[in-house]
Amino acid sequence: MKVKVAVNGYGVIGRRVADAVAKQDDMEVVGVCKVSPDYKALFALKKGFKLFAADEKGVEKFRKMGVNVSGTVADMVKEADIIVDATPGDIGPQNKEMYAKASKKAIFQGGEEHELTGFSFVAQCNYNQALGRQFVRVVSCNTTALCRVLNALDLAFGVEKARVVIARRAADPDEIGRGPIDAVVLDPVTLPSHHGPDVKTVLPHLNITTMAVKVPTTHMHLHSLIVKLKDKTATVEKVSEVLRRTPRILLVSSKLGVKSTAHVYDLGREIGRERSDIFENIIWEDSLTVEDSELYFFMGVHQEAIVIPENIDAIRAMFELASSEKSIQKTDASLGIKSSIP
Amino acid sequence: MKVKVAVNGYGVIGRRVADAVAKQDDMEVVGVCKVSPDYKALFALKKGFKLFAADEKGVEKFRKMGVNVSGTVADMVKEADIIVDATPGDIGPQNKEMYAKASKKAIFQGGEEHELTGFSFVAQCNYNQALGRQFVRVVSCNTTALCRVLNALDLAFGVEKARVVIARRAADPDEIGRGPIDAVVLDPVTLPSHHGPDVKTVLPHLNITTMAVKVPTTHMHLHSLIVKLKDKTATVEKVSEVLRRTPRILLVSSKLGVKSTAHVYDLGREIGRERSDIFENIIWEDSLTVEDSELYFFMGVHQEAIVIPENIDAIRAMFELASSEKSIQKTDASLGIKSSIP
Amino acid sequence: MKVKVAVNGYGVIGRRVADAVAKQDDMEVVGVCKVSPDYKALFALKKGFKLFAADEKGVEKFRKMGVNVSGTVADMVKEADIIVDATPGDIGPQNKEMYAKASKKAIFQGGEEHELTGFSFVAQCNYNQALGRQFVRVVSCNTTALCRVLNALDLAFGVEKARVVIARRAADPDEIGRGPIDAVVLDPVTLPSHHGPDVKTVLPHLNITTMAVKVPTTHMHLHSLIVKLKDKTATVEKVSEVLRRTPRILLVSSKLGVKSTAHVYDLGREIGRERSDIFENIIWEDSLTVEDSELYFFMGVHQEAIVIPENIDAIRAMFELASSEKSIQKTDASLGIKSSIP
Amino acid sequence: MKVKVAVNGYGVIGRRVADAVAKQDDMEVVGVCKVSPDYKALFALKKGFKLFAADEKGVEKFRKMGVNVSGTVADMVKEADIIVDATPGDIGPQNKEMYAKASKKAIFQGGEEHELTGFSFVAQCNYNQALGRQFVRVVSCNTTALCRVLNALDLAFGVEKARVVIARRAADPDEIGRGPIDAVVLDPVTLPSHHGPDVKTVLPHLNITTMAVKVPTTHMHLHSLIVKLKDKTATVEKVSEVLRRTPRILLVSSKLGVKSTAHVYDLGREIGRERSDIFENIIWEDSLTVEDSELYFFMGVHQEAIVIPENIDAIRAMFELASSEKSIQKTDASLGIKSSIP
Repeated sequence: MKVKVAVNGYGVIGRRVADAVAKQDDMEVVGVCKVSPDYKALFALKKGFKLFAADEKGVEKFRKMGVNVSGTVADMVKEADIIVDATPGDIGPQNKEMYAKASKKAIFQGGEEHELTGFSFVAQCNYNQALGRQFVRVVSCNTTALCRVLNALDLAFGVEKARVVIARRAADPDEIGRGPIDAVVLDPVTLPSHHGPDVKTVLPHLNITTMAVKVPTTHMHLHSLIVKLKDKTATVEKVSEVLRRTPRILLVSSKLGVKSTAHVYDLGREIGRERSDIFENIIWEDSLTVEDSELYFFMGVHQEAIVIPENIDAIRAMFELASSEKSIQKTDASLGIKSSIP
Repeated sequence: MKVKVAVNGYGVIGRRVADAVAKQDDMEVVGVCKVSPDYKALFALKKGFKLFAADEKGVEKFRKMGVNVSGTVADMVKEADIIVDATPGDIGPQNKEMYAKASKKAIFQGGEEHELTGFSFVAQCNYNQALGRQFVRVVSCNTTALCRVLNALDLAFGVEKARVVIARRAADPDEIGRGPIDAVVLDPVTLPSHHGPDVKTVLPHLNITTMAVKVPTTHMHLHSLIVKLKDKTATVEKVSEVLRRTPRILLVSSKLGVKSTAHVYDLGREIGRERSDIFENIIWEDSLTVEDSELYFFMGVHQEAIVIPENIDAIRAMFELASSEKSIQKTDASLGIKSSIP
Repeated sequence: MKVKVAVNGYGVIGRRVADAVAKQDDMEVVGVCKVSPDYKALFALKKGFKLFAADEKGVEKFRKMGVNVSGTVADMVKEADIIVDATPGDIGPQNKEMYAKASKKAIFQGGEEHELTGFSFVAQCNYNQALGRQFVRVVSCNTTALCRVLNALDLAFGVEKARVVIARRAADPDEIGRGPIDAVVLDPVTLPSHHGPDVKTVLPHLNITTMAVKVPTTHMHLHSLIVKLKDKTATVEKVSEVLRRTPRILLVSSKLGVKSTAHVYDLGREIGRERSDIFENIIWEDSLTVEDSELYFFMGVHQEAIVIPENIDAIRAMFELASSEKSIQKTDASLGIKSSIP
Repeated sequence: MKVKVAVNGYGVIGRRVADAVAKQDDMEVVGVCKVSPDYKALFALKKGFKLFAADEKGVEKFRKMGVNVSGTVADMVKEADIIVDATPGDIGPQNKEMYAKASKKAIFQGGEEHELTGFSFVAQCNYNQALGRQFVRVVSCNTTALCRVLNALDLAFGVEKARVVIARRAADPDEIGRGPIDAVVLDPVTLPSHHGPDVKTVLPHLNITTMAVKVPTTHMHLHSLIVKLKDKTATVEKVSEVLRRTPRILLVSSKLGVKSTAHVYDLGREIGRERSDIFENIIWEDSLTVEDSELYFFMGVHQEAIVIPENIDAIRAMFELASSEKSIQKTDASLGIKSSIP
């Protein structure tokens, strides 16, 4: 019996979660819910996903455009064991109520507050705490990436203090209404940015402060990390070795021509996954520097893709389908994580 | 016996030509030649392509990086029946000499002058004139797109005069050194731009004038076309119908959410081809307007991908492997052109 | 007795109108109205402008921030002979009612509909029709620029048909929330764009069609013009001569290094006006091309500044302070138009 | 007797230095040297600067364009007491030789190596060490800004360690050929960036590490600073107070609407200096945060303007025209530094 997964919201995250679920042998997509009958809806149908509208009015809208629709979100919820909620921020609370009434499990994304579920998830940090839960929040792209790498460093060397400056991509590629065009925006001006506290919802004991700015790019967030380590014997070689064997972290090098987020984007196109996605934290190996037991490095985060494996693992944990190691392994094999890169 | 194809230059065009050749049943890739042992080289090897360096010094460079290299470009040329030259502009003439000495056929790209080969190619315009030729130039992305659509309109309605303004993407995604960042550059200031005359190398009788500006985007060229038709009975419906049945032209609509080059880029990711490529001219159906027998519309051109099918067809024509219709059909089927879109 | 001018809205246009009014000897600024007590408010006070808030609540807000405020917009209107309304679009109709009740004259900007005033104004086209009017609409930046140049060409050579493609800057420099970042947006997809019809509100007999796209720049609109002339003897020299002696049109040349909107922006900084403003249409002299009595050229439009002289002239016309020639001359002398460029 | 200043190189820095020199009562511009007879040359003449070409060939080129030229750079050097060299990087060493042969003093910019002069200058850090020197290097924009603020913090609180991440604007507004368009470029990938060591050429005892990325903007660099202070009693109020009374540092606030580099750019236009220049370090007062004696804040740097006052002060120091305090005061008064902002 496969777990029946419904995806509510078929934008940046929802589309990718649906495709990833469809690649697993222990779960299946029972439907996706969309507000507009646009080109994404047509591709969803082409892939064989049942399409649901937000409400009866939406059903009418789809039908008028000649797009095959199977009902409303309420109909979809009925058919599901779990709903991955990938709707835009702020309607999470009201959706949670709907799922709770239907006695369904649900996963929310990082746009929602930690308090919505009381539990925030990153697979390689706290999988076991998600076992059997009804509601789980997968944290945002930047938080996910920070948790993966800082947890690995903390386990290996002890993190005394992490200082991180994030240059955020200001918009996803198809968000044509969002700027800025020629500016760096302080995001926010008052410090710290929300990322540090958000990391602590997953790793409560980590000492971290973050600052963030928004820059006019669409493809990746770029983190500058300065991490004071407890282990005074840490070296670049040891750090490299630890990162290399950590799941979902990929080392790249400017010696092989990767010098910018644009090169990572192009690398993603060579990898050849759907939508040229990159599920791994990208860390520049030749930026790794240790000075006075302080580690400096650059990290790139594909904001559209990085949380997808966490959504899959969260489903497995919530239905107790597999151990942490086994789930991460299955997810990664199905998506070609790390293995698809020469 | 498959035609043995070597690809000289493994950048934007070369990578895509190699992959497209590998998808055909009547040709095969015998090697690709690259200057730098970068991440693209590693992926070429992963795909099973033999890798060649530009010269002996290059061979050394590859070996030092531990990248498996099979010889120099001269070695590669020996193994090939035809070379697709996708090197950056300006070294075409000296490469042509090398190919001629080895008595090989060769295809050059639109960065070279028409005079290099004396023949410029767009499959659906002049396939038959390429039959048996030793040297063929596939025209540039913008010229290819203009030839496809204006030839179709000319055959159906007669084109009295075409006026086109092109907003060119200023750089490909990974060309991080190229600007502008916040400007429109007249490209060039003096008129007309080279595109009009270049179209005439393929369609000599067409009356066309072009202006071009460069804008800070990376994903597509955007053409604004104003086409005076001879047929005074032309209507939007008739034009729509003609374009719909023309090969390699895809109609999109803002009613389905496609309102910008960014949406087309995202649409390309949904289609799911390698590197999210779009081989078709993208024409906005709801921009089609006819007024006083003058047709107005917007067209998008994915600069990295649009000439790939032409390279494949040029190979077939030069070896007389198939008729025009048959070749276009085979190429399009192998690449999913038009058929992969719902 | 100077005409007492109030400026309602102190953003892109309002700030510039206030400064321009302050430079005239036959009018004066009695106040400016602003919604937020931000840095622009502080500079307004530094310049000696009386500051008004939108309403009583606004007055409170200003006082809390310690910003000196002289009352509400209603108080400001009382002190004025005329209000230049530079509020954001859509509240024009309700503001007009307020001005009408107070029996005041008012000028609206191009963001409002023609119907709001029934009369649309460009100084060198229809000054005399504005004499004595109570309500006048100064047209938008792109429409103003098109009217100036096409009217001059029409008077000199007769315009048979004007075809124009506009690459619009997507946001003003400080509009950090507006995109796109990496896309060309069809604006709108359906044709023609509103610019053509809007030109006809000033020049009803002109035959013009326009298409427009939005590009990720902040400094200027860039027009590509294709103008069929009735006079078959028109030459580049004659056109050049006409444009040279037309008010508010400035010829630049790539021979002097001006090859992009960025160079025009930098040229504006050299001119040394307040805010580096450029009030003139910028036309590239070396783009001027005549072929078969069709004129091609590129034109740049500083969207923030170009309508400022029209606002000043409109005030003079509405109070019948001067003839068209005299007013344009006075305005241009006070702002250094054309005369401040070597 | 005024010091006779020649400016070699009339681009971003040279133009501004010439204008600033012309505003002083103890120095004067004897000429400016330019490579191309472009629009900037015409404005230089309009301002009354004598124009020189790089060599005899250049003189010819200027004459052909009808631009009034007074000789070659060698002629200009003869007339000067000191040359401010604002030529593009890398020709400093050969220019230095020319100035040395003519027994002239010279100032070089931050694009040159520290070793060229053996002395690097920031007015408020080491003015006295420049007294009487023949050759001085004014450091780059980012280094100047960092020296100003870190020196002030070090004097007031003691700096234990400064960690800085710089988001560099990738091109100046008129550098239309430079990208990236949609990427963050690691600049460089290997750490630290050159800024830290460069700060130490002025403040040798400062403990500082820097990382830098390049982003697609044209108006300002944006620094994220994390500064561990020795004084455990430091508070936001105390830091604020120190910065407020430090020369050439301007505090801004998001409460007054300044939330991005674009707002600072617009603020610069309101200030009303030539070219809308901002000579001050811009520090966001509401970003100032002290946590565990570590200070966090954001700082903006107008890359085109910030070193201009340092060039003026360096001239005074080299001719021993005034004390440090007196010179900074004169320079700041002439340029309206800090005093022109409400």
